[in-house]
Amino acid sequence: MHLVTGGAGFIGSHLVDALVDAGQKVRVIDNFSSGREEFLSHHEDSGRVEIFRADLLDRDAVKKSMQDVDMVHHLAANPDIRLGTEVTDTDLKQGTLATYNVLEAMRMEGVSRISFSSSSAIYGEADQMPTPETYGPVMPISLYGASKLGSEALITAWAGTFGAEAWIHRFANIVGPRGTHGVIFDFIHKLKRDPSRLEVLGNGMQEKSYMSAEDCVKAMIHLIGHCDKNVNLYNLGTGDTCSVRRIAEIVVEESGLEGVSIEYTGGDRGWAGDVPKTSLEVSRLLETGFKPNLASEEAIRHTARALISEIGL
Amino acid sequence: MHLVTGGAGFIGSHLVDALVDAGQKVRVIDNFSSGREEFLSHHEDSGRVEIFRADLLDRDAVKKSMQDVDMVHHLAANPDIRLGTEVTDTDLKQGTLATYNVLEAMRMEGVSRISFSSSSAIYGEADQMPTPETYGPVMPISLYGASKLGSEALITAWAGTFGAEAWIHRFANIVGPRGTHGVIFDFIHKLKRDPSRLEVLGNGMQEKSYMSAEDCVKAMIHLIGHCDKNVNLYNLGTGDTCSVRRIAEIVVEESGLEGVSIEYTGGDRGWAGDVPKTSLEVSRLLETGFKPNLASEEAIRHTARALISEIGL
Repeated sequence: MHLVTGGAGFIGSHLVDALVDAGQKVRVIDNFSSGREEFLSHHEDSGRVEIFRADLLDRDAVKKSMQDVDMVHHLAANPDIRLGTEVTDTDLKQGTLATYNVLEAMRMEGVSRISFSSSSAIYGEADQMPTPETYGPVMPISLYGASKLGSEALITAWAGTFGAEAWIHRFANIVGPRGTHGVIFDFIHKLKRDPSRLEVLGNGMQEKSYMSAEDCVKAMIHLIGHCDKNVNLYNLGTGDTCSVRRIAEIVVEESGLEGVSIEYTGGDRGWAGDVPKTSLEVSRLLETGFKPNLASEEAIRHTARALISEIGL
Repeated sequence: MHLVTGGAGFIGSHLVDALVDAGQKVRVIDNFSSGREEFLSHHEDSGRVEIFRADLLDRDAVKKSMQDVDMVHHLAANPDIRLGTEVTDTDLKQGTLATYNVLEAMRMEGVSRISFSSSSAIYGEADQMPTPETYGPVMPISLYGASKLGSEALITAWAGTFGAEAWIHRFANIVGPRGTHGVIFDFIHKLKRDPSRLEVLGNGMQEKSYMSAEDCVKAMIHLIGHCDKNVNLYNLGTGDTCSVRRIAEIVVEESGLEGVSIEYTGGDRGWAGDVPKTSLEVSRLLETGFKPNLASEEAIRHTARALISEIGL
């Protein structure tokens, strides 16, 4: 049995799909704070997906969710990176403390394998681009990034002290159908409110690595099958980048709207804690034989199309 | 006013001494779980040191302790690294959560400068020796190391999001008078119980970087005065190492005991989560013009002498 924390969420539900496709039985633990039942409803009749509605801060529930589990995929987290600028304990609780509860429940129930969704946000404003896994010092500038690095640290400590086996995936910006946050999602909602103009936070020169959710979960499963060190740590991305300016253009193109005025609020970043430029070095991933289907810009176009259809314009 | 968390503890009380010597007023916040009143009693009549008895998990107390503070020196932590193998939430609470409370109280009270005692434990079993600050990926193997890396991440996030200014010091093994934990302390207590034999955990080949507490606090104050980036991150050590076997010999020599049989329990490390070999690259520190007084072995001999006198043999 595979346990997917946050399995009703954006990336989590794609991972559930991929695990079921691979013939696995899956238990989802989710508090449905950003996860949605409809993201998993297509599994209802298969008998392959169990849903366990609970918050990871409820330690007894987390412990119960470990029954018959061989491997934990820990994806639950606060998905709203910008929230940390206003509410400072969400990432701490839903990130670092939730990870502690997962690890401690695993230890008590004798589950040793964990795959974790970390983030390129841990690199902060790296002065090496593209940024490899060996980059240091890692100095996240967002509270979200801090919670991911704090979680990584707990996982490696559980590996070193209690013998856990870990796969740590440092995600690029992951985009795709069922997205509930992020720049493409925001742009579509803005155009829905006002189809004549699109406000872009910052000067639009922010530039990041993107990857489709489908490629992302394929890469996670690939790495679990291909790497068996005590701790296996990989950047997950496509090796290229796309600017926010280009994303705005693509969303407008895909919207079919005419005469949209794209307006920039100015400044080098969207908000305090936003990293203006990220570019992930992914040669370590590619050397394992994994090849993403979509490059950053393609992933963005596919996502824009899917979310426009989901959200409705 | 300088606030020193853990200021009644081993390194904290040395820092209080050095700040008072430099003419500063100091407030100590300490829960006296490992700190001791006698470590500060020599300041009683000076009027320069205020003692605020509280736990950092008490958020209201931490907020109150920030009054009139210009700079926070955050040294409070669980000093017993090995404890994490048995009790898994002490480092999380007294490390990561305490750091969150300190940062949040600083933000609410408008205090922007923080100096933090991190640790070489964050490097885990690094494959580069001596290990520079730029080493990555950092994968701590102890719960103590995880709490230090989790704290570093919170501090850089507070710097990036809320404009905090930070000095992060990654300590070698710090030794000196008033030590309440660690290998020298343990050896002396073992000899006190049985002067005929000294049991050493592991094969004695463990080898680490040491630094005297006096040099350590001098280095911290030096770096605060000499570096003014948003985040200033430095390894603090002497550039050399000493083996556990050599420490055992030095402690026995300094004890004056004759015919002590040194016995090794075997294995490459003292316990799960113990890093067998650490060697810190300290050229970044030396380039700022700081020069430690004592090398690793000298620091150990001075410490053995001081602790034998404190503990009594």
